[in-house]
Amino acid sequence: MTDRTGRRNVPDTHRRSESRYGNRPTMKDVAARAGVGLKTVSRVVNGEPGVTPETERRVQEAIDALGFRRNDSARVLRKGRTASIGLVLEDLADPFYGPLSRAVEEVARAHGALLINGSSAEDPEREQELVLALCARRVDGLVVIPAGDDHRYLEPELKAGVATVFVDRPAGQIDADVVLSDNYGGARDGVAHLIAHGHRRIGFIGDMPRIHTAAERLRGYRAAMEDAGIAVADAWMSLGVTDPERVRRAAREMLSGPDPVTAIFTGNNRVTVTVIRVLAEQTRPVALVGFDDIELADLLQPGVTVVAQDSAALGRTAAERLFRQLDGTLPRPERIELPTRLVTRGSGELPPAD
Amino acid sequence: MTDRTGRRNVPDTHRRSESRYGNRPTMKDVAARAGVGLKTVSRVVNGEPGVTPETERRVQEAIDALGFRRNDSARVLRKGRTASIGLVLEDLADPFYGPLSRAVEEVARAHGALLINGSSAEDPEREQELVLALCARRVDGLVVIPAGDDHRYLEPELKAGVATVFVDRPAGQIDADVVLSDNYGGARDGVAHLIAHGHRRIGFIGDMPRIHTAAERLRGYRAAMEDAGIAVADAWMSLGVTDPERVRRAAREMLSGPDPVTAIFTGNNRVTVTVIRVLAEQTRPVALVGFDDIELADLLQPGVTVVAQDSAALGRTAAERLFRQLDGTLPRPERIELPTRLVTRGSGELPPAD
Repeated sequence: MTDRTGRRNVPDTHRRSESRYGNRPTMKDVAARAGVGLKTVSRVVNGEPGVTPETERRVQEAIDALGFRRNDSARVLRKGRTASIGLVLEDLADPFYGPLSRAVEEVARAHGALLINGSSAEDPEREQELVLALCARRVDGLVVIPAGDDHRYLEPELKAGVATVFVDRPAGQIDADVVLSDNYGGARDGVAHLIAHGHRRIGFIGDMPRIHTAAERLRGYRAAMEDAGIAVADAWMSLGVTDPERVRRAAREMLSGPDPVTAIFTGNNRVTVTVIRVLAEQTRPVALVGFDDIELADLLQPGVTVVAQDSAALGRTAAERLFRQLDGTLPRPERIELPTRLVTRGSGELPPAD
Repeated sequence: MTDRTGRRNVPDTHRRSESRYGNRPTMKDVAARAGVGLKTVSRVVNGEPGVTPETERRVQEAIDALGFRRNDSARVLRKGRTASIGLVLEDLADPFYGPLSRAVEEVARAHGALLINGSSAEDPEREQELVLALCARRVDGLVVIPAGDDHRYLEPELKAGVATVFVDRPAGQIDADVVLSDNYGGARDGVAHLIAHGHRRIGFIGDMPRIHTAAERLRGYRAAMEDAGIAVADAWMSLGVTDPERVRRAAREMLSGPDPVTAIFTGNNRVTVTVIRVLAEQTRPVALVGFDDIELADLLQPGVTVVAQDSAALGRTAAERLFRQLDGTLPRPERIELPTRLVTRGSGELPPAD
């Protein structure tokens, strides 16, 4: 069957052939079907007195027949309380954020709040769009892994009472709660570990330098090299997108030429995974320490030495601070730094090949 | 400074020491501050005519001073359109769902919709609670990875026009769109591959049998064994939670005793990761084929042979069907099955050790 517009027009109890947007029944529809006023429907829906049993029965029948559902958003607006928090991630598919998201959700759940979740895909404009969309949907609070470095757009929301905690990376241009890993200290320790095993020509491959964590880890690398009196050659440092093609090229360049690096420090788990593959092609052993732990790192030959962050603790700490803000028991914004942990497994303890 | 209740009471421009719930300014607050009626504020906020420039300026000043933000939920209710879809996952931290979530989000974004996301933690009650909470927040549609097997609770929502697609696992007791991997066929192929390499005593370690994917993969294992005329011993099959301790015990039991298995087929990525660790402790080689691909599987010794699902394609297909439902261009529910792919890397090609 095809209707005049050329669309197939198949009868179906569940579907309508026209768009479904805006097809949900309203209180007005219920009132019309039951032959009563809107106020009567509202009384029945909200369990208020002043309705005869017979009328209540008619309204209830209309509610059932139409599949009407009281709109909690509207009800909640009247109370000014939505019991939901938003989480703005950078990438839904990065395994680093899995335990962090789960920890935020568990804390939200313990407080009876729903978690609403979305990703910025490392785009500051998309971050702002998502954050404001969540605020417009009246989330009580936000946990944000920021992509941008200017969060003044959030000031009206903060003034209006939206609790906000930044995690993994700090807020820019505003005073806000921040929960971070010790990116600088962790990277410095990891690079110092390579130096302690005899390396001097050590490469650094990291994420884009405008990302706070990438910049801090580079700073840690430079500090460890300086502490050891090693002058860093420009060719040893490569920062950019964590796309495997870019990282592969960077690693191969550092490993070729007359003075190749003998060890590499990788700036995050996405970079580490690609560099492991490049090192597997090499004929001589190259030492590796990676920032972030990765699954199965201990089963590779050699096991991969890492500077591990506690992703779940970051999420839990941020979410707990958010609910303390909402309870009014946090006097002022703080910056909390969680320690990292060096996990030695073999790759970071290899001596220089030359 | 400590107030009478013993709480620290520190003045701060961003925070209030009392609870923040319900502290957001309303149109009424704006009207009071500007000294105008509610209708006038509404006209300014919605860009309607009938307001003098002087009054508009006063209202705008009040809006700015109070940090008032028009409530999109309320506005959207009037239009009956929220432009958001919900995604109900089983576990935010399982890497299998990362590419699936990202794919759903990309499709939502291409349709101008926000993705709202939450997890059931494999609890049917929690699934229902989350789904209905999302419906009450008037999502236009839902992509659900179900934990439960009875979805009749969704019937009023479906009738009311909420588009719904189930993914990874089918809906129970209702007629709905479903996008699945070929779990049965994939498992049968994987086990047949082990049989082709000379194995007869093959173990199966999977997830809880009430989970559709686990049951289907077990059915595939049984079919491949039956095709080869091999009678399956009860001791070769272990189904239960994917907790590492449970899986480790199951694998060790199958590998001990007078007639140990010479190969293991693992029912999902969580099980595979633990079994790889158990096999690394063994003195004799044991063949392994795992359902789901895992990161770095190719770099282990031996590389891990897997039956790979296309997690991103599952998410993309489900989300695209959801928006076709919303556009009214899908005549009726369908069940779509995506193929799996056997990826041979070494572990599945080991001959029996005895």
